Amino acid sequence: MSDPRPIRLALLGYGVVGAAVARLLDEQSAELAARVGAPLELAGIAVRRPNRHSGTDPALLTTDAAALVTREDVDIVIEVIGGIEPARSLLLSALKSGKSVVSANKALLAEDGARLHAEASAQGVDLYYEAAVAGAIPLLRPLRESLAGDRITRVIGIVNGTTNFILSRMTASGAGFNEALAEATALGYAEADPSADIDGFDAAAKAAILGGLAFHTRVTAADVHREGISEVTAADVASAAAMDCTVKLLAICERSGSADTPSVAVRVHPAMIPLSHPLAGVGEAFNAVYVEAQAAGSLMFYGRGAGGEPTASAVLGDLVAVARNRLSGSRGAGESAYADLAVQPIGEVLTRYHVALDVADRPGVLAAVAGAFADHGVSIQTVRQEGRGDAATLVLVTHVAPDAALAATVRRLAAYDFIRGVRSVMRVEGLPAD
Amino acid sequence: MSDPRPIRLALLGYGVVGAAVARLLDEQSAELAARVGAPLELAGIAVRRPNRHSGTDPALLTTDAAALVTREDVDIVIEVIGGIEPARSLLLSALKSGKSVVSANKALLAEDGARLHAEASAQGVDLYYEAAVAGAIPLLRPLRESLAGDRITRVIGIVNGTTNFILSRMTASGAGFNEALAEATALGYAEADPSADIDGFDAAAKAAILGGLAFHTRVTAADVHREGISEVTAADVASAAAMDCTVKLLAICERSGSADTPSVAVRVHPAMIPLSHPLAGVGEAFNAVYVEAQAAGSLMFYGRGAGGEPTASAVLGDLVAVARNRLSGSRGAGESAYADLAVQPIGEVLTRYHVALDVADRPGVLAAVAGAFADHGVSIQTVRQEGRGDAATLVLVTHVAPDAALAATVRRLAAYDFIRGVRSVMRVEGLPAD
Repeated sequence: MSDPRPIRLALLGYGVVGAAVARLLDEQSAELAARVGAPLELAGIAVRRPNRHSGTDPALLTTDAAALVTREDVDIVIEVIGGIEPARSLLLSALKSGKSVVSANKALLAEDGARLHAEASAQGVDLYYEAAVAGAIPLLRPLRESLAGDRITRVIGIVNGTTNFILSRMTASGAGFNEALAEATALGYAEADPSADIDGFDAAAKAAILGGLAFHTRVTAADVHREGISEVTAADVASAAAMDCTVKLLAICERSGSADTPSVAVRVHPAMIPLSHPLAGVGEAFNAVYVEAQAAGSLMFYGRGAGGEPTASAVLGDLVAVARNRLSGSRGAGESAYADLAVQPIGEVLTRYHVALDVADRPGVLAAVAGAFADHGVSIQTVRQEGRGDAATLVLVTHVAPDAALAATVRRLAAYDFIRGVRSVMRVEGLPAD
Repeated sequence: MSDPRPIRLALLGYGVVGAAVARLLDEQSAELAARVGAPLELAGIAVRRPNRHSGTDPALLTTDAAALVTREDVDIVIEVIGGIEPARSLLLSALKSGKSVVSANKALLAEDGARLHAEASAQGVDLYYEAAVAGAIPLLRPLRESLAGDRITRVIGIVNGTTNFILSRMTASGAGFNEALAEATALGYAEADPSADIDGFDAAAKAAILGGLAFHTRVTAADVHREGISEVTAADVASAAAMDCTVKLLAICERSGSADTPSVAVRVHPAMIPLSHPLAGVGEAFNAVYVEAQAAGSLMFYGRGAGGEPTASAVLGDLVAVARNRLSGSRGAGESAYADLAVQPIGEVLTRYHVALDVADRPGVLAAVAGAFADHGVSIQTVRQEGRGDAATLVLVTHVAPDAALAATVRRLAAYDFIRGVRSVMRVEGLPAD
């Protein structure tokens, strides 16, 4: 039997992830060939500045990515550029030319995944993107394949390492947000412009991808309610600790609505979770995703969410699958969006609030506070007073209620003259259902 | 377009798991059809005593499993009988007849998986068995697909819920093994004959499957070094706690040997792990598998390892994949055993021991004990004396050394007259590498 023809790869992007992909392709070439059934061979690497990569065979480097992705000798395009353009145009062009695509691009998948999937389907080729969410953690394949026979009810993820590092530091040291951010920047965990991470854009893109896969529907980044961590205070972190909770930036995708009008709710915001919850122990820059499914029960996936090598591991796993498919003339499961669910607005989503209020310690205050909650149809699960006199603080945790009602209650309370200040307001997740 | 022909299923076994599979097939029929692209339809259910299943359509029930698995109108055979025979003969017959197979049978896959894989490959059909290891936790697909582009170096699993429940109880209450076993039995976590669980046979079968998949080789149950938990004492559990560890029954699969003569080591035994290790928090009857890979780093998969519904979730996930493959005329990745590694004997495996010795508190004892370790080429990482006089105990933790050298050291120590007793001997896992 003659040796099989090599599978030829175009690599778009040659930064930290791209370089790790190229290195692992070289180091593990024998194993990868054995697993695929044919050698994997780099046909070209699209870069912006070829003279920056003096250690790489110059014949491989090109600045003409558009030409590379349609070259006849290319079978699979690996995209690790990131961002919307030129990645989108390049991938659409690659798919139109019959190439399969492996991408790590969460922003693009979250903004325009449906269009890419449609093109892949029209051409009968693969579009895989395990590396786009939670780096090395096998997550998309388990969601779309292993759990394809179950009904997922909720996905809660810690999917951004930078914000998890900052919140872990605030928890460990009592530091404020700015101090913890400075430490993260100094240690290389935060970018010079950290907005994509700390304002929740990165997590929101991942939440959109997770929500779409988990519920067989389409969710875009614009559908995701997003709040970052820049307003999390040392007082919030201390309040969480006082009730055996910790603060995490969570990406939450839930089945919502009624049986007649089912919907999906997808949101990213800081929240308190009980220390007993499996996600509470996920520290530093680690990621983890907790999945609740009707038959499977609770599952958790944990690992490194970023970094060149972990991301390259996920890219290469996809690459082996896509290459096998090309060899056997088949393709993997495409987009599954048949459920076509509406996205529930944040105001209607059922959440639970923790509220700490600095109050005047005098008769009638608790009755007035409780009345404000009652007026908005919110019931209180626990209430506790800390301190006396001018240092009195009321700490309340509500039962679940529509988010708009909770927010309106807090606005009302802030206007009362006997409330000296709202010390901390934060949603609470991971408690047993009401 | 005409509706696609239904995919027809034969279900072998109708106990707790089989009944959950049948119920979920019914309850989720619309979703499953949408995900597969064709309806899934039960063609028959093989049972031993049809009169025990009065709620089920009698036309579906048959006692003739051998006829069912070769029937022309059956596409996929689901096997949830367990055990070696008649499951093996039935599945070989089904595969020979061109049926794809979904099985939850760890014992059979661990004993004779190669033969089943060979038959599936010869017939160009699928053999999937996600439910065989760690129930609902997506694990085999991540190992064999998501991590196919990486080099896995170690897999450490808590893969038996019964023993984890018993050890969790011993840790929580200080109870002895027999007392905790009685509680597990009373609560339904242990079978009337608990040997398969407590003697480690169940975990060893799962370890064989995990080791084969992780290292692209073949491992059978007979290759697995196996020790159960019946000799774990309250003193062991207390010793573990004193060094900030906890006792778990671990299934460990490691890459071993040298670059020239690579091998794989697969073992199941109780071990102490640090409380800071992610596996330490896996309590009650939960399962978790911790994977170390060169590029991905550390990953953990956590969830329910047993029970009708969790196991059915894994079976149905496989079923959706296999049904999609049949519709598209393709098949999933088959066995990947190209590495063909030797299995390292336990005596050569590098492990680390914790040893607690009741000693006579007199000059020269520590020197003699240290000498016994040195004579066997074992170096000591920490040593600590607890108590004085007749209540003196020496607690030692070694560096890693060949298991045979550690065992020989303990035998030598036990023979010294100044050793009043060996209080606890247990391997320690999950510490940083030496």
